[in-house]
Amino acid sequence: MTLNGSLLVAGTEKRGTNGEFHGIEAATGKVLPVSFGGASREDVDAAAAQAWEALASYRETDLGSRASFLETIAAEIEAIGDELIVRAMSETGLPRGRLEGERNRTTGQLRLFAKEVRAGRFQELRFDEGDPSRKPAPKLDLRLRNISVGPVAVFGASNFPLAFSVAGGDTASALAAGCPVVVKAHSAHPGTSELVGRAVQRAVAACRLHPGTFSLLFDTGFEVGQQLVADHRIRAVGFTGSRRGGTALMDIASKRRQPIPVYAEMSSINPVILFPNALTRNVDGIASAFVSSLILGAGQFCTNPGLLLAVDGEALDAFIARTTELLPDVAPQAMLTPSIARNFCEGVARLRVHPEVRAIASGKPGSEFEGTAALFETTAEALLAHEELQNEVFGAAGIIVRCRDLAELEAVINELEGQLTVALIIDNDDEADARRFIPKLEMLAGRLLVNGFGTGVEVSPAMVHGGPYPATADGRSTSVGTLAIYRFLRPVCYQDFPAGILPPALRDQNL
Amino acid sequence: MTLNGSLLVAGTEKRGTNGEFHGIEAATGKVLPVSFGGASREDVDAAAAQAWEALASYRETDLGSRASFLETIAAEIEAIGDELIVRAMSETGLPRGRLEGERNRTTGQLRLFAKEVRAGRFQELRFDEGDPSRKPAPKLDLRLRNISVGPVAVFGASNFPLAFSVAGGDTASALAAGCPVVVKAHSAHPGTSELVGRAVQRAVAACRLHPGTFSLLFDTGFEVGQQLVADHRIRAVGFTGSRRGGTALMDIASKRRQPIPVYAEMSSINPVILFPNALTRNVDGIASAFVSSLILGAGQFCTNPGLLLAVDGEALDAFIARTTELLPDVAPQAMLTPSIARNFCEGVARLRVHPEVRAIASGKPGSEFEGTAALFETTAEALLAHEELQNEVFGAAGIIVRCRDLAELEAVINELEGQLTVALIIDNDDEADARRFIPKLEMLAGRLLVNGFGTGVEVSPAMVHGGPYPATADGRSTSVGTLAIYRFLRPVCYQDFPAGILPPALRDQNL
Repeated sequence: MTLNGSLLVAGTEKRGTNGEFHGIEAATGKVLPVSFGGASREDVDAAAAQAWEALASYRETDLGSRASFLETIAAEIEAIGDELIVRAMSETGLPRGRLEGERNRTTGQLRLFAKEVRAGRFQELRFDEGDPSRKPAPKLDLRLRNISVGPVAVFGASNFPLAFSVAGGDTASALAAGCPVVVKAHSAHPGTSELVGRAVQRAVAACRLHPGTFSLLFDTGFEVGQQLVADHRIRAVGFTGSRRGGTALMDIASKRRQPIPVYAEMSSINPVILFPNALTRNVDGIASAFVSSLILGAGQFCTNPGLLLAVDGEALDAFIARTTELLPDVAPQAMLTPSIARNFCEGVARLRVHPEVRAIASGKPGSEFEGTAALFETTAEALLAHEELQNEVFGAAGIIVRCRDLAELEAVINELEGQLTVALIIDNDDEADARRFIPKLEMLAGRLLVNGFGTGVEVSPAMVHGGPYPATADGRSTSVGTLAIYRFLRPVCYQDFPAGILPPALRDQNL
Repeated sequence: MTLNGSLLVAGTEKRGTNGEFHGIEAATGKVLPVSFGGASREDVDAAAAQAWEALASYRETDLGSRASFLETIAAEIEAIGDELIVRAMSETGLPRGRLEGERNRTTGQLRLFAKEVRAGRFQELRFDEGDPSRKPAPKLDLRLRNISVGPVAVFGASNFPLAFSVAGGDTASALAAGCPVVVKAHSAHPGTSELVGRAVQRAVAACRLHPGTFSLLFDTGFEVGQQLVADHRIRAVGFTGSRRGGTALMDIASKRRQPIPVYAEMSSINPVILFPNALTRNVDGIASAFVSSLILGAGQFCTNPGLLLAVDGEALDAFIARTTELLPDVAPQAMLTPSIARNFCEGVARLRVHPEVRAIASGKPGSEFEGTAALFETTAEALLAHEELQNEVFGAAGIIVRCRDLAELEAVINELEGQLTVALIIDNDDEADARRFIPKLEMLAGRLLVNGFGTGVEVSPAMVHGGPYPATADGRSTSVGTLAIYRFLRPVCYQDFPAGILPPALRDQNL
């Protein structure tokens, strides 16, 4: 098709001249066709300048036009056809079914935000009628609406090449909020990024929007992203990736002349709490559901269950025994990139030699590009003494923590860092204990779930994909679901404005 | 009454042993009766620990009880009677009428938040009904509510000893959100703080809440505040004060193991834009309204108009001439503290000797504890070349900027830092020009107002008292009005919860 490795800067395409890189076939490490050129400082500057220029008109598009734009992006992504799936499969190693599902999620998400835009509630219109006769001071006429925070820098995620990348959740919610977007493509799937970027670019043109509404940049290192976050015209950041990457961006953002919010989703081990009655009554069922969740997508989900807490005893022994039966049958799976595979392998190796950790079971071995599922166990005492055991090992690795009793399990919970999800596996008879834990868990995570696992994140109004630091940079937000739009809005109050200069949404007819 | 200089830690009173200080009569610099003891590290730790302990029960108070608590605080403040006004007058130098009005605002604000709590909308309840039969994956039952972020540290402001201090806007909105509060009293009005703190403490007891719901600490320096913001149990900060103070707290908060949001309202010069037609037609009216706003409360408002932009010409000459007639009649006014008076005096002196600034007029001279109003003029060129001319001089000082034309005025706007307010003084014939400016002004400030000045901040649903950095630390928020409650909330999603452990607000009857 039109894949040629170009930067897409505000309606133009342009060969990047700041270094060159290729897409890599995840399953084999082989170089894929088409080379990509990195963006220069001038390219980044141009993208930010164009985004700023687009802001004035884009943030005041009427709701219907903005919604149509989001729907046009969805249609343009669908129109790419199978080329998108095939390229994404080779770049990420993810199977066809997963990527077709992810494409549905991506277009569904764009259409959901289109509906949200049409409904207009995100504007949060408020009207305080004036009263000139009020004593001692007249009451002012005040009207409030939310406006776009300004251009947003979005960093594509490696693990969702469609749903959390160029036209993923961050981009969809930022565009819905009226923010032009500059995407820094993830180098793990540059071809997929370019294909989707061209679809967005076509949608911008078809909807006759300012071309600066969208740009896509490639980077051979970190400079493009750093420059973007430091640029004074960028007013918020959406990021999904590592803790090191996220905190580096937070640092840049906080040192700007005008600091800006960074919505970074960074790391989470998503504790699963096995309550005693549930465990006793359904060892096998829970064990296989847990293993399925652990290995789903080679464990490359932000919500992958990396820590399982349970009370020691026969039932837990049986549970562990069952996992040792299941895991050896698990086939190795290609990981997203050779370096993710290497990091996973090193993370597992570190656990393997940790004096307080015992290896329980492993999946089948694979190539250097594949991940082999691995399960470990340790004690609550060890977990409390060794902070590093809370570090996420990105991939299908989990640690089962033996707790003496529920009190010790609670002590572990008290020491956990912020999480995206916590799962409670309970039976009716566990409800009283669960109820006691919930207040602590609410302070710990953005989503609590019962008798399920965090993998599988619904895109809907009531979803929260967020949580206290370090799960995300800002625990007051979600990056999935319609609530995500609020990240990119701020309120403005208009006092005693004559009708002629009031924003249309705030005129009397909407009172 | 009961004023004895004690720390109020979670239902107890205790003499602070970490240094000692007195209230100072603002108008004379004389030491007032009663000495106050500073909080030790142990006291701060105890207040934070008690706040954390109170969190679990306080954040789950039913809405009616929480609303009654806020109303009880209001009633207890009223019950202090005239002692509060008398003490505040001597500590702040503010006149009786202003302080009685401020007390009304404070109690009105508490009652407004009580209504907001009863209405319950801030919980943002969302329900996604499950559908187990959905293909390919069953749809989960998701329910969302906002919960308290946790204990909040509130820093009292010097310039609103009631409405932005111990039981002011930050405390009221944090308590409304379900957050226990630890207040660091402003040393400019310790007696006022203790009186109000005791009123809150009585309300906590009367409502049978956990005593840790509220504590009040005194500080002889900065250690108490720094320790509070660094404490892991404190989860958000409300602050009104200087830019140096605010950015110091932001810095501490961002370096914590778990960074937390700081809502600091810091500095704003609240530009006023005089449009040509309005100015030509009403020189005298605008000049006297401007001078009134400039000198109100000795200029000690965050929304004081410190910068006036206008196009050069006869009308502006006439305007300036009129201010030179008005200002010399302005009596000096006691400032809030001797050091604020000194800083104001120094700020004015710096402008007086600035090579690009011309002194236009001054009010009547006063004592070393009083502020003398001062007006200056400069050119757009000079303002653009000298960043320091944008620095806030806290008090009744303003700079009039002569712009060659509206294009140069626009160039000045492009270089301004974030503001709380921007005022547009317009006539019908200025609307077309004003309309062109508004998109830039929306990006610059939290509140835009027409034919008025920013002083006079209504406490209501549509108010925004906030704005991009450095006006506040977080331009997505307001510290005045009902929207302020959202600063202290975060969303939590509950997936597939059985009714028995769902928070009551999320049970089926509220579907």
